[in-house]
Amino acid sequence: MSADRSTTEPSITVARNGAEAVFEVLRRWGVDKVFTCPGSTEAAFLDASHRYSDVSVVLTTHESIAVSMADGYARATGRPAVANLHTNVGLANGIAHLYCAHLAKSPVVILNGLKSTSIQNRSGFTTTPHIRDFARQYAKWDWQTLRADAIGEDLNRALKIAAAEPMGPTYLGLSQDLLEERSSVPVPPAEKHRVTARTRPDPELIAVASRLLSSSRQPLIVAGYEVARVGALGELVTLAERLNAPVVAEDRRTMESVAFPTSHNNYAGLFSPTSEMVREADVIFLAGARTFVEFEASDAPVFPPGTPLIHLNSDATELAKIYPTEIALVCNSKLGLADLVTAVGSWSSKNGDTRREFLNRARATYSSIRQQARDESEQLSNSDLISVSALLDNLASLLDESSTVVDDSVTSSAAVKSHLLGNVPCHYVATAGGSLGWGIGTAFGTKLATPDRQVVAIVGDGVFQFGLPGLWTAVHYKIPVVFIVINNGSYAAVKAALYRYGGPAAKSGRFPGTDISGPHYAHISRGFGAFGQRVERLVDFEAAFRSALKHDGPAVIEVMTDPDDIGPIQTS
Amino acid sequence: MSADRSTTEPSITVARNGAEAVFEVLRRWGVDKVFTCPGSTEAAFLDASHRYSDVSVVLTTHESIAVSMADGYARATGRPAVANLHTNVGLANGIAHLYCAHLAKSPVVILNGLKSTSIQNRSGFTTTPHIRDFARQYAKWDWQTLRADAIGEDLNRALKIAAAEPMGPTYLGLSQDLLEERSSVPVPPAEKHRVTARTRPDPELIAVASRLLSSSRQPLIVAGYEVARVGALGELVTLAERLNAPVVAEDRRTMESVAFPTSHNNYAGLFSPTSEMVREADVIFLAGARTFVEFEASDAPVFPPGTPLIHLNSDATELAKIYPTEIALVCNSKLGLADLVTAVGSWSSKNGDTRREFLNRARATYSSIRQQARDESEQLSNSDLISVSALLDNLASLLDESSTVVDDSVTSSAAVKSHLLGNVPCHYVATAGGSLGWGIGTAFGTKLATPDRQVVAIVGDGVFQFGLPGLWTAVHYKIPVVFIVINNGSYAAVKAALYRYGGPAAKSGRFPGTDISGPHYAHISRGFGAFGQRVERLVDFEAAFRSALKHDGPAVIEVMTDPDDIGPIQTS
Repeated sequence: MSADRSTTEPSITVARNGAEAVFEVLRRWGVDKVFTCPGSTEAAFLDASHRYSDVSVVLTTHESIAVSMADGYARATGRPAVANLHTNVGLANGIAHLYCAHLAKSPVVILNGLKSTSIQNRSGFTTTPHIRDFARQYAKWDWQTLRADAIGEDLNRALKIAAAEPMGPTYLGLSQDLLEERSSVPVPPAEKHRVTARTRPDPELIAVASRLLSSSRQPLIVAGYEVARVGALGELVTLAERLNAPVVAEDRRTMESVAFPTSHNNYAGLFSPTSEMVREADVIFLAGARTFVEFEASDAPVFPPGTPLIHLNSDATELAKIYPTEIALVCNSKLGLADLVTAVGSWSSKNGDTRREFLNRARATYSSIRQQARDESEQLSNSDLISVSALLDNLASLLDESSTVVDDSVTSSAAVKSHLLGNVPCHYVATAGGSLGWGIGTAFGTKLATPDRQVVAIVGDGVFQFGLPGLWTAVHYKIPVVFIVINNGSYAAVKAALYRYGGPAAKSGRFPGTDISGPHYAHISRGFGAFGQRVERLVDFEAAFRSALKHDGPAVIEVMTDPDDIGPIQTS
Repeated sequence: MSADRSTTEPSITVARNGAEAVFEVLRRWGVDKVFTCPGSTEAAFLDASHRYSDVSVVLTTHESIAVSMADGYARATGRPAVANLHTNVGLANGIAHLYCAHLAKSPVVILNGLKSTSIQNRSGFTTTPHIRDFARQYAKWDWQTLRADAIGEDLNRALKIAAAEPMGPTYLGLSQDLLEERSSVPVPPAEKHRVTARTRPDPELIAVASRLLSSSRQPLIVAGYEVARVGALGELVTLAERLNAPVVAEDRRTMESVAFPTSHNNYAGLFSPTSEMVREADVIFLAGARTFVEFEASDAPVFPPGTPLIHLNSDATELAKIYPTEIALVCNSKLGLADLVTAVGSWSSKNGDTRREFLNRARATYSSIRQQARDESEQLSNSDLISVSALLDNLASLLDESSTVVDDSVTSSAAVKSHLLGNVPCHYVATAGGSLGWGIGTAFGTKLATPDRQVVAIVGDGVFQFGLPGLWTAVHYKIPVVFIVINNGSYAAVKAALYRYGGPAAKSGRFPGTDISGPHYAHISRGFGAFGQRVERLVDFEAAFRSALKHDGPAVIEVMTDPDDIGPIQTS
């Protein structure tokens, strides 16, 4: 029986049909879970799962959950994760979250069960002429398998490409008849197709970059998502210490993970084009950063004209994309930073006083921003209503370095970054993609990948409605994630936009299309079988959180926050 | 002020910015509602809504709801309905249901708020390079407006094309900066751009078709969705009576509306390729039908070889798409049927006995199928568990001709067609699109369009999870639709597919990926502020239904049905 074949078998083996070939390829790649929301086209796939106990099928009740769970799983493991979606309608439902995976270079492999080839040409049920159009914008590679005996080869390639640097989503369409067809399907040896595609940068450019950094008087480092993605925080810390340089994270909207320890003495908050240290730096090193996932075009220059930029990223299209760049390094962030550390050499006192002073000023600015946030928080927390910052201060005191915070809180995410990340050295997972509801499946996928970590998700009330079906999966599989639903009863981001726009809405105080108050999310959560508690006074939060932690499955704490506390009005 | 301009002004007028031009064009076309789930890109649009009280913004909390509400509204009114979606992620979330609108030729106009043109080229936040790829497969026309002063013209065109025969969805992308730009935007006179595009068929072909029908001995009519869409039931009834021909609806999966009165003496159930009357007919007239939205390719011939087909449809691509066709009539169904009625002339006794006998046999077959369904229903209803057919028999007794049934019940829809449509002359709205959750927004959109009708939606438990956010909108606007959630705790369609596949799942009785039991949907509904009641015994159903009818807003009756009652295993 094909299922008994050794996974270390080095040569091509053969499965009995397309569906079994799918499982054979997955197990060879070490894929142990497939997140799915199936339809009738997936019958052969589901049936084959009976034979493969080492690859489990995780059922979701909406494709957006399957994709975001795979995304969370892929980000946490650094390995390809697979979502199996049903026909044109299921694929469409998963696309918004696939955009998030695409931005994060998260290796999510989309398998898409298609109706039989005999009705695709006839506009048959749930078929569409350009099925790959939905996926191709967010996939590194997309294909529809044309013959049953190619399924193994094609899926092997989808996994290979997703896992090769720069990682990212891939797409494979699999027609029902080809999955079902009883034929010999070759299964390639995965171990002969693993291509890390990690590269070191051009040594000449490293030499130039290290001279520029070494001779700088006021260097600034922007720590980007690629550093976190490839686990190069150690290398970046060493470099920052040797240069005695302040390090900022990407800007509020671009930042998706902690790429430099927030408790480190060189950490100086978020990048902001208007900050003094950006204006005063004599070189800016964009380490694995993106520049940027812009919310709007900046009125002011993002980087001061004349300040040389050094940009390191695995993706050449990110380099010099908008801003003139002195040195562009295409490479894996870990390898590239290691090269730079070596080239820069050990710490030298050259420009020592200037650098120390620059770092101190950067740190002082960061401290004053945090103090300001605390003051604002205290001001608001004196009222009867719960402010987001006070809530997050409270939550911070309950988290530690074993916590992973999944952030899909939209307007509250500025406060999450200042009030949580500044105070707790937790893991942090967010998206620059703006696809509401992404955080719910992602939190569950993260927990499955890192069961020993305490996973806490912070989501808005609007977001929670988008991701509700995720509760079904989490209850069914008893996935213990604690959700903090910040219920301000509104689409606060839209309200903020109306304030900025300054028209009749802002003048009259009537904001059409923003009031989503009404639902009792704790009650709804209990209807799914989850723990659910509504908190209306901050003093009740800690007890609710501790009860939630004890629950064997998903727990939802709905916090009724001040409806007027909608986060920053300005976009930057 | 632009809002004060007369809507009957015949010439081009001017709006003050793109957003106001949107409203000016909409009111001129008589569009009184825009279904939206906004983001920050829609600020100017929302702000402009303050000035236009005759176009109301209907807020939804998920784009799938906005699109399906617009679809329901468009189908019920026969006029274009507008959904305004937010950027790439919002558009993607609405696409699965747009497929349903596409199949039904429902004139849904998608407006898509895009980020400013200044960041679209930079892969900015929620932008994507091929945004129109998402919509183009389901839209008759798609465009992204390039200049602020073209917004009026472009939207006018989107509405014009959606409303022209054959109707269907259109798409228009509107960038934030163009909507906000203060500039003079021409607003075309809608009344000079209305193009019905209704056509009569080629008279030579009508003559041939009428001769063929008049001389036939055993003619069979298939009543298709186009007949219902353009309101040509009267013409079809007349034709059927003159020919004394049995009339069947499209097949179970293709049928989306009642295109021939089910209480009429010539009605003979659903088309089935295996039925005797299809095999014996000497001519088959496909009146506004599709052939077909096929679930799978048929093993047997769908039409007997040699039986001449006459096919009438507004869409030339539907004609002779798969099956060889004797006479293909491209025309509006109402005009084409009127021509045929005239050409066939008054009833003649030619072949009278043969026809009468053929009709009687068709009716007898239909009666026996209904009796069989009733017998099966009674058999199942003797058990303690609720069977779907018994439930629907019960429901049928509570409905009448003022009821509209929206059917998104997947595997139960066979029973809906036999047990409801055969017994109650209600309106019927379904989709051939298979996009789960479609029925929820559609039911609410239908109710808004026809407030005097009693709208009842029948949905599966899986479907209900997909459409949950729709409850928010219905509670907020107090839209009184009664939902019957058939809770069999499973993806029954997948289970049926596994039975058909006949592999380890069917043999072992363990069906992976199908068990979605657990949630208490009545409880969840109450969490949204809706009426919610769970029914576990059939005797409690009527009282629950009567309570639900009294509720001022959406009401959900969750009926716990026999988990083994999963509808027909076979696909045809």
